[in-house]
Amino acid sequence: MTAPMTHVIGVDLGGTKTAAGVVAPSGEVLMSETIPTLNRAGGEAILDATAGLIAGLVERAADAGMSVSSVGIGSAGVIDASSGVVVSATDAIHGWAGTELISGLCSRLSLPAAAVRAVNDVHAHALGEAWLGAAAGSSSSLMVAFGTGVGGSFVLAGTPVLGHRFVGGHVGHFASPYASFGGSPLSCVCGGSGHVEAIASGPALYEAYLRCGGSAVDAADTRGVFALAATEAPDCGAAFDGGAAFDGGAAAGSADSRAAALRAIEIGAAAAGQAVGGLINVLDPETVVISGGLADAGELWWEPMDTALREELLAPLVAIPVLRATLGNTAAIVGAAKLVLKPQNSSLSSP
Amino acid sequence: MTAPMTHVIGVDLGGTKTAAGVVAPSGEVLMSETIPTLNRAGGEAILDATAGLIAGLVERAADAGMSVSSVGIGSAGVIDASSGVVVSATDAIHGWAGTELISGLCSRLSLPAAAVRAVNDVHAHALGEAWLGAAAGSSSSLMVAFGTGVGGSFVLAGTPVLGHRFVGGHVGHFASPYASFGGSPLSCVCGGSGHVEAIASGPALYEAYLRCGGSAVDAADTRGVFALAATEAPDCGAAFDGGAAFDGGAAAGSADSRAAALRAIEIGAAAAGQAVGGLINVLDPETVVISGGLADAGELWWEPMDTALREELLAPLVAIPVLRATLGNTAAIVGAAKLVLKPQNSSLSSP
Repeated sequence: MTAPMTHVIGVDLGGTKTAAGVVAPSGEVLMSETIPTLNRAGGEAILDATAGLIAGLVERAADAGMSVSSVGIGSAGVIDASSGVVVSATDAIHGWAGTELISGLCSRLSLPAAAVRAVNDVHAHALGEAWLGAAAGSSSSLMVAFGTGVGGSFVLAGTPVLGHRFVGGHVGHFASPYASFGGSPLSCVCGGSGHVEAIASGPALYEAYLRCGGSAVDAADTRGVFALAATEAPDCGAAFDGGAAFDGGAAAGSADSRAAALRAIEIGAAAAGQAVGGLINVLDPETVVISGGLADAGELWWEPMDTALREELLAPLVAIPVLRATLGNTAAIVGAAKLVLKPQNSSLSSP
Repeated sequence: MTAPMTHVIGVDLGGTKTAAGVVAPSGEVLMSETIPTLNRAGGEAILDATAGLIAGLVERAADAGMSVSSVGIGSAGVIDASSGVVVSATDAIHGWAGTELISGLCSRLSLPAAAVRAVNDVHAHALGEAWLGAAAGSSSSLMVAFGTGVGGSFVLAGTPVLGHRFVGGHVGHFASPYASFGGSPLSCVCGGSGHVEAIASGPALYEAYLRCGGSAVDAADTRGVFALAATEAPDCGAAFDGGAAFDGGAAAGSADSRAAALRAIEIGAAAAGQAVGGLINVLDPETVVISGGLADAGELWWEPMDTALREELLAPLVAIPVLRATLGNTAAIVGAAKLVLKPQNSSLSSP
């Protein structure tokens, strides 16, 4: 037998699901599996399930003649990358804060502590994009993800800037001039107010739609707002949203809702772009990567985001590349794997 | 004779004056000199004068038995630290942009290119504070200076994050909810609008004073606004600003002016604190250093700045140290010197 290639496992542990993959030194995800995150069962139960997921992949890899040496994890929450403990987490994963992520997995998998590394999932995501995605080849990159929340990571010389207390990358939590209504700052999920996330996240965009007079009947969530905005402007009395068109009042309401949808997207996108533009002036990354559900929502969001971003930039930065993330769901798996992959050695032979 | 200690020259080249010092490996500034920056004479004339300043110090150092091996420069403008060229600069130094700072000094001083390094002066300032000032011993620090402008630097593991195009640290150029008046964003010196610098710099604070109804007679500049704010609230008709008190109308105006001064300081300080607090959430530095003229203006500015800063912070960051800069005018000299100082070797002997 030839010497087996050293593969690793990359894990993306999020609020609703946990995905893991066997990752080659090249970054290729050779096999993967996803399980629901037991987000109401507590930290120990999640560790049990995650260890089971990893063990299953290690076995499948072994069956294919590949040895797995170590595990990298990108996890929701503030992760102490040095001790491997979950410093804090939102209630999206009940009982996650305080969980001993690294030692808990090591004991379950009989691995030495040095074989497992963990960071916050957004940092893992950004590291994946910096290594093999939209920012591949850049000496530094700033990724900002606009989705359920707003988060990001500044990757410098191949390493995410985690921060002294591992809190770095909370790019959704600085003040935005857009994050107010009726003269008062909007509440932010962090407990503060007036932050970027309070106006530029997906849920915030939906709330802006409601504040702009949009009806919950016409759009039940952020996705619905985009669907509504993407419809043709209704002719007077013409149907454009199915059943409601038969009711004259609701049809008028729908026209208002469509205007509200367009306005909410415009505001959320402008707030997002303004925030990223300001961060570019502060950090001057080689490449900027925009990710998350809103980045995938199409030109209706991207165009005003990009316009607002460019308006903020200092003159020497106007040509900066601002790119859509390219790795999709595998970004955090690949980035987590990168944490434990040795610099690639091209002399390694296949089995 | 014992082997001479290897000293270096640190230069702080600003818009109005250029200071340089002979710096020991310990960071001690052993001798220094200051000349006016020939800010209307063009880049070559400034290089001539700066080379003369450096040569004079090298000679004085030699007379004292010290050899000088290299020169570090912190300069106004965006400095390409790799090529040593001034990428861009404000009109504060006429003709500075495009100047070949490193090669120009090397040829004038007959030094090899490797003996001279240059960065932007704010980065040099922050590096000085990170090395021997308020952030000494910290693995990372964020310095923000509030003065004629608003600038900063994130120093990570002993190195300022200069940015891919050397534009990093422009922390005065992101959006501030405070930077608007009458619903319109305030103009920023960068050509943009609504930025932190447009409300939190010293000149911006003076403009806020005028917008708040303060009179130019009662305070002619930012310093005057602080002097006015620091006076006791006037009794009805009592004099508190000299001559103007003899004029009933002016005395009433002075009371209005004092209220405007207090309000302008409150707004400028709150904008400053909110901005720094947001940056802390993004970068999570071990230590934060506040510098510049406004940081030295006393509790009237510091207290509302600190309050606004703390309001922004995410929970795991509430105990972060926010310190006043301690090195004063020598910070940039010391930081510039650090660029070219070898890691200190305690076995070096005095001459």
